[in-house]
Parts: sequence; C-alpha cells; structure tokens
Amino acid sequence: MIYLDNAATARPNGEAVKAALHFLEKDFYNPSAMYKEGFQIHREVESARKNILAKVADIAAFDFIFTSCGSESDNQVIFSCARRGNFVTTLGEHAAIFNSAADLKRRGVEVRFAKLKNDGSVDEENLLCLVDANTTLVSVIHVNNETGAINDIASIAKKVKTKNPSTVFHSDGVQAFGKIPFRMSAAIDFYSVSAHKIGGIRGIAGLVRSKKKNLFPLIYGGGQEGGLRGGTENVFAIKQFEYAAEQKFLNLEKDLKKVSSLNEIVRAGLDKNLFRILSSEQASPYILSISAPGLRGETLMHMINDQGVLVGTGSACSSRNRYSRVILACGVEERYAEGVLRISFSAENTEKEVTDAVKIINECAAKLSESLK
Amino acid sequence: MIYLDNAATARPNGEAVKAALHFLEKDFYNPSAMYKEGFQIHREVESARKNILAKVADIAAFDFIFTSCGSESDNQVIFSCARRGNFVTTLGEHAAIFNSAADLKRRGVEVRFAKLKNDGSVDEENLLCLVDANTTLVSVIHVNNETGAINDIASIAKKVKTKNPSTVFHSDGVQAFGKIPFRMSAAIDFYSVSAHKIGGIRGIAGLVRSKKKNLFPLIYGGGQEGGLRGGTENVFAIKQFEYAAEQKFLNLEKDLKKVSSLNEIVRAGLDKNLFRILSSEQASPYILSISAPGLRGETLMHMINDQGVLVGTGSACSSRNRYSRVILACGVEERYAEGVLRISFSAENTEKEVTDAVKIINECAAKLSESLK
Repeated sequence: MIYLDNAATARPNGEAVKAALHFLEKDFYNPSAMYKEGFQIHREVESARKNILAKVADIAAFDFIFTSCGSESDNQVIFSCARRGNFVTTLGEHAAIFNSAADLKRRGVEVRFAKLKNDGSVDEENLLCLVDANTTLVSVIHVNNETGAINDIASIAKKVKTKNPSTVFHSDGVQAFGKIPFRMSAAIDFYSVSAHKIGGIRGIAGLVRSKKKNLFPLIYGGGQEGGLRGGTENVFAIKQFEYAAEQKFLNLEKDLKKVSSLNEIVRAGLDKNLFRILSSEQASPYILSISAPGLRGETLMHMINDQGVLVGTGSACSSRNRYSRVILACGVEERYAEGVLRISFSAENTEKEVTDAVKIINECAAKLSESLK
Repeated sequence: MIYLDNAATARPNGEAVKAALHFLEKDFYNPSAMYKEGFQIHREVESARKNILAKVADIAAFDFIFTSCGSESDNQVIFSCARRGNFVTTLGEHAAIFNSAADLKRRGVEVRFAKLKNDGSVDEENLLCLVDANTTLVSVIHVNNETGAINDIASIAKKVKTKNPSTVFHSDGVQAFGKIPFRMSAAIDFYSVSAHKIGGIRGIAGLVRSKKKNLFPLIYGGGQEGGLRGGTENVFAIKQFEYAAEQKFLNLEKDLKKVSSLNEIVRAGLDKNLFRILSSEQASPYILSISAPGLRGETLMHMINDQGVLVGTGSACSSRNRYSRVILACGVEERYAEGVLRISFSAENTEKEVTDAVKIINECAAKLSESLK
C-alpha cells in the first residue's frame, strides 16, 4: 500500500497518540472543573494552546482558540466577521469558505469572488478591485487544497488593509500549517489550522486570532475557550495535536526538502503523452494535481487503487462532483478537468514508494487509454 | 481518589478506546475518499451511525448526524429552526441553549423562558402558555445537568404540537442518553446526545433528527453528514462512541438500579443539620445536588477535594459563577444557592466509595461550619 492522499488526511503521529493516551485513561478530568485535578488539566490545555500558537505567531499579539475542525474555524470567522456589507474571497477556496458564502447571501451579505490565475493563485489585482469601503471581511486561502497553489497572504493582506484598514483579513491555512514556512504578520487577523493534516487526530483544529479583533462564538456554550467556543475541551486531541505539531515544525524545512524531491520524481516520471501537470512549479510540493485528458479520473483512480496506490480525485471533501470548480477556475478546459488526480505527499513517503507509484500510474493510464481506442 | 463528578465528564471506556485504536493506526483513511480503503471506513461510519441511532429511535423515521459536542448539536437546531417568530425554552436549560438564546435576540427572534417548578422540572402550563402561532421552535432539556430533574419531553412535545403543529420540538438529551430509558416519539423532532458523558471520548456527539424536519448546517464544508455538517469525519471517536454506547445501553437498567442505590446512600447519609438536598426524589439518580446553607460551595468542594473526593459545584461549564441560575430558578433562596455541591454518579462507583465520600463530605462541612462560628 502506497499512501499518496496525505492532503485528504494524514496518518496520525503514533508517538504523539501514545504520549497523549493518559488523558483518556487517568487524566480525563474536565478542565473546567475547579478541583485541583481539573485545574491541572486546564494548565495542560493552556500550555498546548501557547505551544501551538507560538509555531506561527507572536503570542503577545495573537491568541489561539481550539475548534473541532478547519471548517469550523473558517465558518466561525465568516459568520462572525462578515455580518454586513460585502465579503471578498476567491474562486480557489476550500468548500468550508465557498459553501458558507452561499449562506452569507441569505443573511444579506454580498459575496464577491476574485478570479484565479492559471497557476491557481488568486489574481491579486482583481481581488483588490473587489475590496471597497463596505468590505467587512476578506478571506484568501494560503495553500489551495487541490492545486497546491500558494497565495502570498502577507502581501495581499497588507494591500487589502491599505485599501480599507477596517476590513478583517482571514486565511485558511489548513494545507500550509506545518508544511510551508510562515509567520503571522500584522495585517493577517485570523488563520485557520487543522491537526489531522499534520499527524494530529481528527476532532481538533484551531483558529489563530489577532488580539485586536473581535470574534463571536459559532457554538455557544459553557464559556470555554474564553467564551468563544462552547463544548468540553477535547484534551486528549489537544495534547496529541500539540505533540504532533512539535514534531512537524521541528522538521518543517527538512520535510519540505524531502517532499520537494518526491514531487520532482513524479513530475519527471509521468508519461508526458498521457498526463498534463496542473500544479505550477511554484505550488506547495505537498500537493500535485495532474490530468489525463480523455480519461475519467475516477476510473483511473480505481485502477491505480487496485495496484495498491492511493491517490485522490481532486479534493476528498468534494470527491463526488464530476468537475472540480477550483480546477475549472484555473482556466483548465473540461476535457482536462475530468481526468484529474491529486497526488499528495508526506515526509513519511519514500523515494521507492513514489517511483513505484509513478510506474503504476503510467501503466494504468496507458492501459485505460488503450482500452478506449 | 473517589470520582463523583461524572456529569461533568465520565472516564472514557478503556475497552472501547482499545477497540477503536486501529482507526488511528492502520485504518485512518478519509471516509470521503473514493478508493476502497476510504469506502470501507465510510461503511464503518455508517454502521456506527445506525447502531447509535437505533438505541433511542426507529431508524425508519429518524436520522443521526455526528457533531463535535452536545453544545454544537444544540446550537445547530437553534440557529437552523428558530429563524423567525419566537423561540420557547425553559429556565432550566444547559448553557448551550441559554447562551444561544441571547444571540437569537440579536437576529430578531423573540425568546421566551418557561418557569421551573421547585423540583427543577419545567412548569408545563407556563410553557404551553408561551407557545403561540409564531413559535418556530421549542426546546426543553430532558434531564437537567445540575439538579437531575427529568422533564416528560414526550408528553410536553405532544402538547406543544397540539397547540401549534408546525412548531419544531427539540430536547437536549445529553444527561439522559444511555442513562434513562427513552425512545424518540413522533412529536420530538430533534434530540442532542453526547459521547463523553457515557464513556465515549470528547470531540464527538450527535443529533437525532426526524426525517420529516429540515435542518441547515451550522458548519458548512465539504458535504459530509449528508451536507449537514462539514469537516472530515472523526472516525476513531465515532467508533469508540459506538462501542461505548453499546455497553452503556446493554447495562442501562442494571446501571440505573445500581446508581439509584448509590444515590440513596448519599441521601440517607448526609448530615441533615448541615445539608439540604436540592434534587427531587423523582430526579435522575445520576445527579444529586445538595446545599450547605451558610457555607461557600467552592470552599467546601476544595476541602473535600483535599480528602480525595471529586465533586462539582453546580455545572462544570458554569462553575466560575457564584450562583447557579438554574438553582435559583428552582426557587432556592440565595443562602442555599451559594453552598451547592453537585454529586454525580457512574455505575463504576462502588458502595464503599460512596459511603466513604459521604463521611468525608459530612466531616468537611462540619469542620468548615465550626471554623465560621
């Protein structure tokens, strides 16, 4: 089995699971409980919060709240910060932003989508044109989950603030966090991250928040997370996330280098007569979208699957749609958009795995192509 | 250590954790992925959904969606179903309902609170008076988390529907699920449940939903949970929840009997000169609220804690408030409301533990009382 769908979900860090298990066994107390055992757990949550936040931000200027998933982080910012005027975002957003936008319209907030360039990054000029005095929120994905396209969010946020200083700037950093070097800058107000893309377990994620910006709960409850997120704190998942993030950030540069070379093996090894590479050379090396024109991506994926290689067809979240709206928004024609595979790497993948996978992918595509003749 | 704060959170079922661990190790795939390994995980999620739902409902008439916590389930129903007119609820609700209600007001929905009777259950007559032609949603907690008071939600729901058939009826069943015999009846449309009160882990919960009723997402994302809840499915937690629920429902009657006898030991053993029992005899035996008039509940709790007994002061979620709004709403005077302890049981507690705990609680209260003279 060769697992190349790491952008959908990554294998949880087993050492981190082991290290956190005692929070399910012995130290299971509710951190809101006021006896000393509860307070000790509360301190564990606070140290995790600080440690995770410090990986990407100055803890004097930013806070961190734990949520249950990256989608929740995105939704909370949108429904909290885009309550009037207009919301400016891009055609390259994850479904959590894209589908929330439809509900914003129901709530009377205008939604404006900036176009993408062919490389999958946002057309900055177009985005800035959409920002005006009534723009309450701008959200631009950091690394696109289908193409790996990287947006220079620090620069975009700064330009947005120059045009309208009161606009709130958010970025979905789920595919960037722990993978791409990044620090929060002053113009970025909110940043969504998730545990399960970097060896954390599911059920935990977070939102980096500028201390200067107001936020409202999406989930009201018993005052947890400074009143910003109800629900008993998921301590086991929080601690496992902390330990997994620790490892991931420690090895970020080394992993990036390794994954870049794995990515290069695939780019170089794919049969050019059968495949077109959709992800740009500047994209995150963790994600590589390719297309086999004339072939159905799903059929090809199943053939490759039968040979023991696991790759995605576009975003796992939206894998039941025929065409990816993001791929189409990059200007890819329909005949290419139908045959898309998403290969996504982890530093755990080996050169041999990737070399074997390319061979299998080429063989399957050749066979499928032949059968259609 | 004697743990008597099981209503705040219960010790996770270790066997269920062990049985589910392979979903973190080997079978970690994204259930939305379309390769066969993903589809197998998808089936695991669906079998868990069906099995958990079947514990409390006819699966032909009801659905079940997984959420991240009981608070999320409550919020989703409120913000989905109370979008106009008025929302009728009670003064005995969990903070997830109570604090959501404040946001409803901002959204232009009128909120009406029904009074409680002295035993902590809702004053049905008062509640029904509040329901009118403009009532879009009624929410009545099943078992109150502070007093254990049980509301006859089947009967209340029926009466509400008689008065206004188009009103949606919801109940927060978090402290009832797996503890009190219950089946969904036709007049109950939504029912919130949580894993971590019955040996499940945190980060997973659910919402039972009548197939006849519309629901909108609270968290928009990639189409998971039939489009009703975004975010990659938390499979490990879902399966551990399933296994824990299986055990809990298998032993429900036996556990109820045992916990009733533990509850009786405390009721009989408490020093009547120092304590007044707030929970009614008809309350859920899992929760026993008591008050030591003239003593600060927090101080007493810490003294008891030093002797190795863990009890709560009211709801863990709202444990930082001096008085509990729910206790006051039951008509308890302030001097009683200040000295409240919540003792909450699990079937894992032993008679010896409970007998020892009562002795310690009595001794601490006597000592504190003496020191104040």
